[in-house]
Parts: sequence; C-alpha cells; structure tokens
Amino acid sequence: MGNWEDYVRKVEPYVPGEQPDAARMIKLNTNENPYPPAPGVLRVLREYDGNRLRLYPAPDCKPLVEAIAEYYGLKPEQVFTGVGSDDVLAMIFLTFFNAKQPVFFPDITYSFYDVWAGMLRIPYETKALDEDFRIRPEDYYGENGGVIFPNPNAPTGILMELSAIRDILDHNRDVIVVVDEAYIDFGGESALPLIDEYDNLLVVQTFSKSRSMAGMRIGYAMGNERLIRYLNDVKYSFNSYTMTQLSLALGVEAVRDRAYFEETRQKIIATREWTKGELRGLGFTFGDSMSNFIFARHESVPAEEIFAALREQNIYVRHFNSERIRNYLRISIGTPEEMEALIRFLRGWLA
Amino acid sequence: MGNWEDYVRKVEPYVPGEQPDAARMIKLNTNENPYPPAPGVLRVLREYDGNRLRLYPAPDCKPLVEAIAEYYGLKPEQVFTGVGSDDVLAMIFLTFFNAKQPVFFPDITYSFYDVWAGMLRIPYETKALDEDFRIRPEDYYGENGGVIFPNPNAPTGILMELSAIRDILDHNRDVIVVVDEAYIDFGGESALPLIDEYDNLLVVQTFSKSRSMAGMRIGYAMGNERLIRYLNDVKYSFNSYTMTQLSLALGVEAVRDRAYFEETRQKIIATREWTKGELRGLGFTFGDSMSNFIFARHESVPAEEIFAALREQNIYVRHFNSERIRNYLRISIGTPEEMEALIRFLRGWLA
Repeated sequence: MGNWEDYVRKVEPYVPGEQPDAARMIKLNTNENPYPPAPGVLRVLREYDGNRLRLYPAPDCKPLVEAIAEYYGLKPEQVFTGVGSDDVLAMIFLTFFNAKQPVFFPDITYSFYDVWAGMLRIPYETKALDEDFRIRPEDYYGENGGVIFPNPNAPTGILMELSAIRDILDHNRDVIVVVDEAYIDFGGESALPLIDEYDNLLVVQTFSKSRSMAGMRIGYAMGNERLIRYLNDVKYSFNSYTMTQLSLALGVEAVRDRAYFEETRQKIIATREWTKGELRGLGFTFGDSMSNFIFARHESVPAEEIFAALREQNIYVRHFNSERIRNYLRISIGTPEEMEALIRFLRGWLA
Repeated sequence: MGNWEDYVRKVEPYVPGEQPDAARMIKLNTNENPYPPAPGVLRVLREYDGNRLRLYPAPDCKPLVEAIAEYYGLKPEQVFTGVGSDDVLAMIFLTFFNAKQPVFFPDITYSFYDVWAGMLRIPYETKALDEDFRIRPEDYYGENGGVIFPNPNAPTGILMELSAIRDILDHNRDVIVVVDEAYIDFGGESALPLIDEYDNLLVVQTFSKSRSMAGMRIGYAMGNERLIRYLNDVKYSFNSYTMTQLSLALGVEAVRDRAYFEETRQKIIATREWTKGELRGLGFTFGDSMSNFIFARHESVPAEEIFAALREQNIYVRHFNSERIRNYLRISIGTPEEMEALIRFLRGWLA
C-alpha cells in the first residue's frame, strides 16, 4: 500500500437519522411531513415525459427559481436553489465563511454546522443557549467570520423574534448572517423581509418539511442579488447540474399550490398543539416548539429508555447523544392517527 | 455596504454548454444520448408512488449502489454514487487532493478539472498532449499530489490503451489516480479490472451519456473499499441526502437492462462511424474518437464560422474558445436522422 492515505481529508462525518424501512412503522425521527406532496406534484409526476430524462436539466434551475421568486415576490436573481438545504448551506459555508475569525453558532443547534466547518477547515465558536434553550443575541456581538443559526432552532424548536434577529444583524454588518429557516412555516415569522435592508443576510428554506418533498432534495437561499451571484459562481465551480429534471418540474408544482400548503401546515400545527397537551399530561416538559417536532424530556424516565421502548413498537423518534440534550427526545409531528398511537402507547407504558 | 465581500471565495466558474430550448432543434452540443432511457426506467416512472416523495431517500443510496455493484461484479462497499459524475469528481478532489505537490492532468481535457482545483485552492500542473492529442504517460512520472484524466479524453475523444494507464499507475503508487470514464461505453476498455491491483485507483463513470439519464444526475466511482469509505465520509460531511428518491429508483432500472444498453450504445457507435466517413468526405479531420462525439476541424473553414452557420439552422454543437483547440468543433452523436440533417446542411453550405 502506498502513502496516499497521508493526503486524505479525514473527517468526522454527520450521522444522518436512520431511515428504517419496516412495513408497519411510525416514523417520527427525521421531521418528514406526514402528508403527500401537493396534488399538482403527483399529477406532473404521472404525466412526465420520461424521454426528457436523457437531457441535462437547466443549469440555472430557471423554472424552479422563477416559481420560488414569484411565490415570495422576489426577483429570480435573489433566489439560489440546491440539492436540499444541506447543499445550499454547504455552498454558503464554502462561499462566504473564508475569514480568519471564527464563525459563530449556538452550542445546541443543527448538528451539521460544526461538521461543515470541520471539513472545510473553517474556525468556529459555539455560543451556549440559555437555560431555556434560547439564543442570546448579545453573544453574537463579538468579532467573527460569519453567523448562522436556525430559526426556529433545531432540535429545540424554539423560535427567535424578528427583533432579536435584527439585533444580531445590526451588530454584524461586515460578515454574512445566515438564518436557516427549515421549520419557519410551522408558526414562525420569516426574516425574509429583512433582505432588502441587510445586504449580508441570507435566508435559507427547504421543500423537505413544509412542502412534503424530502425525497426530491430541494433547498433554496434568498438574499440580495450580489450574494446570490457569488453563490452561483461557486455552485458552477462545483457541479453545474445539481437539480434533476424531475426536482425542477415537481418543485414548481409544490410551490405553486398555496391552498394545499396552507391546509397541510395548519393541520400539522394543530396536531402539534394537541400533542403538546397530551405529552404535558404524561409528565413531559419542553419549550414552546414552533416547528414540526417537539423536543421533550420526561420528568422521571430517562430519554434513552423511552427511545428504546418506542423503537420496540416500531415507533421511531430521534435521540441525540450529546451534552446538555442527552435526556431529550425529538419527536416529529405525524398524522393525528400516528400521534394518537404514540400517546396511547406512552400512556400505557409510563403507567 | 459592509466588508463582507472581503471574505467571499471568488472563483472563475465553469461555463456549462448552453441548454437551448427551441422547439425544433438538433442538439449536438452536450453529449446527451439521443435515445430515451431504458423501458424499465419509463415504467417505474409511470408507476412511482408519489406519496413516497415526502420521505428522505436512503442516505447510503443502497438500492442503486447494489445494482451498480451487481452489474460490475463488485461489492457494494466498492461503489460510491453522486449527483452526476461532476459531484463524484468534486468529492474526489475534496477528499484526496490535499498534498502540497501539484495534481497532474492534461492541458486539453475536461474543463472542470482546473475549475475544481482553483475553487478548492489545490495546486495543479497541466501536461501538454502530443500533436495528435495523445496523453504521454511519461509526463505523469514526476512527483505529484494526484493524477486525473478522462479516458477517452474530452473533448478529443482519443482513447488511451490500458497498458498506458497501467504505466501511469506503476509510476504513481503514493497518490490517487482517477480515470474519468464518462465516455468509456462507446468503444473503450475500462480500467475497472485494475482496481483489485491498485488500491489508489478510482474509476468514475456516469449515467448521463451511455445510459440516457443526464436529467437524473447519477455518477459513480469504483475503487477499493477504503477509498470508497473515505469518499463517503466526506460526502456525509457535505450533504447526507444527495440523490433523490427518483434518481435511486430509476437508476436501478437503467443499470439492470443490459440488452437495451447494448442495443443503444451499438447504435451510437454505428452512427459515429458513419458520421466520421461523411465528415472526412467534407474535408474535416479528427482523431479516432471512441466516445459519443467527434472533435473535428475543417481543412479550410474556421470552426467559428461553421459553428455560427449551424446555429442559424438550430443545429447546436460545442465550440471551446481556448488555446490549441479554437479551430475545433465538438459534435455529439445524435440519431441517424439528426446526423444526416447535419451532413446534408454542411454539404450544401461548404459547397
């Protein structure tokens, strides 16, 4: 064996939530939407001319970019799309986080941020959430190479007010500030209106949660035209054709159907609020989640034991084995029937 | 405006071939396959349960990885898949090209290599092809940080014998050697059998050309299990879910249908050989392409003039405005009817 291993980029990769494939399971572990994609998505899929798959997709993702721009009242030049928001965020790290100062993000947050920083050799510093798992804006005042946080935060589900985001932006005019809004459609207020005011703000969203399209890998960033142009330059230096023909065609339909989007997200919000009440009654405590999951711990039973018991019933939730949150479970919001089954089992098992 | 622009990764992005969308055009500019995907692909697309799109795809791309492994008689642990071979190659650059010594590749070659190196700040050195556009193995003997070349080479279409590849491998045991076989199915001999012998060899292929699936973005690398594991570690540090549910499902069908694959690639080879004869008769010269394109120049008419005349007829070919190859056109092989239309026009126009 040669010495080639000396030159390998060695990383500690992100471990994605398991994707079990049991016939009868209740899958509440990766925050997928329990409802199918919009009817238009299913129709275009059925009618799609498969012969077109021999052709490259539009490298500028034009149809999808235009549909997203129209939905939010933006110019297409203000929208960047990628293979899920992970791809979009990785491109943002690569494009904008090149300073010597550390990038700031919370200590409890989306577990990919430190993985990207590690892989790309980007210095970073985590800022501890307060005891109620809230982000303290003043922690982000110091000199840094960029700021990123999810809103609502993951895996806590805690929402930050727009005034607090504005506070962070006002103290960070010389670096890129990224608000990762994967879960914003479940009750939060988007920072999108601030992009006109702050030329260093990027708002990232995804079709994987509120638009029921995790399987098609669609994420997007919105910001001022110059930011989007820089992002596209790097994307074109990495892979010109990232989005499949079908992601573009189906994504357009997903974003067009406002009525279905409203209906399904309201259903999920209602189920979440019902679930909160039930969990509380069973002795769980949690912050006031504004996402499509609840991050909860039980007053007396360790999270790991509950996790194992649920798993035996083919009910999958997520457990993170890391400091401060070891005793919590992240429970995605499924259909009312799925959540009832979860509560029914917990009620019996905890009794 | 703040100083954030100081920290932007500024790059000279790759300019992809144009993707015109005219109603009646002959598209011979991006080496797409003129035939539709295998019948099984179209069947699975028609029958696909769109409700599944709400779920994340398998992060390990298992069904597709297993189908590719089975096709080539490999273990699944020897196969890595990505969003087109561009994604696979970008991951290879990121994972393996981290030495201080320059990576070697030909001066005339796939125009993405220097773009990736530039973006990722990887030192590189190009090695001039000889006068007949052939790679000289001895140019790759010196100390380097890795070696990459397409076989057949792009955009020349010239094939290197396996003995020459073995020669390069024998002189490079301490770095990763990548053979980029995007066009190998059109008449070349794959270096795949050498992966057992050389633990530093990666063979990269794609579904975009010989499998008529450019629109679904499927590429793959084959090599020893340790190489594939390193690649997956970096992939999981970048984006865990890169391949859409549909790319996985349709890709499996594309790789399973050996008969259709044989039939269509033989048709393209036959059309290519016919086209060579006709072009020769019209005063074009070119190396003996073993790919699904011909890289040709005319004995008296400048390439740019031919390019413009074809374009006016809605016949799109590719012209690279770079040194040594400015007077060449890269003409993809379409259907017999498309190539007859091309030849008919050229015959009249050149007369």
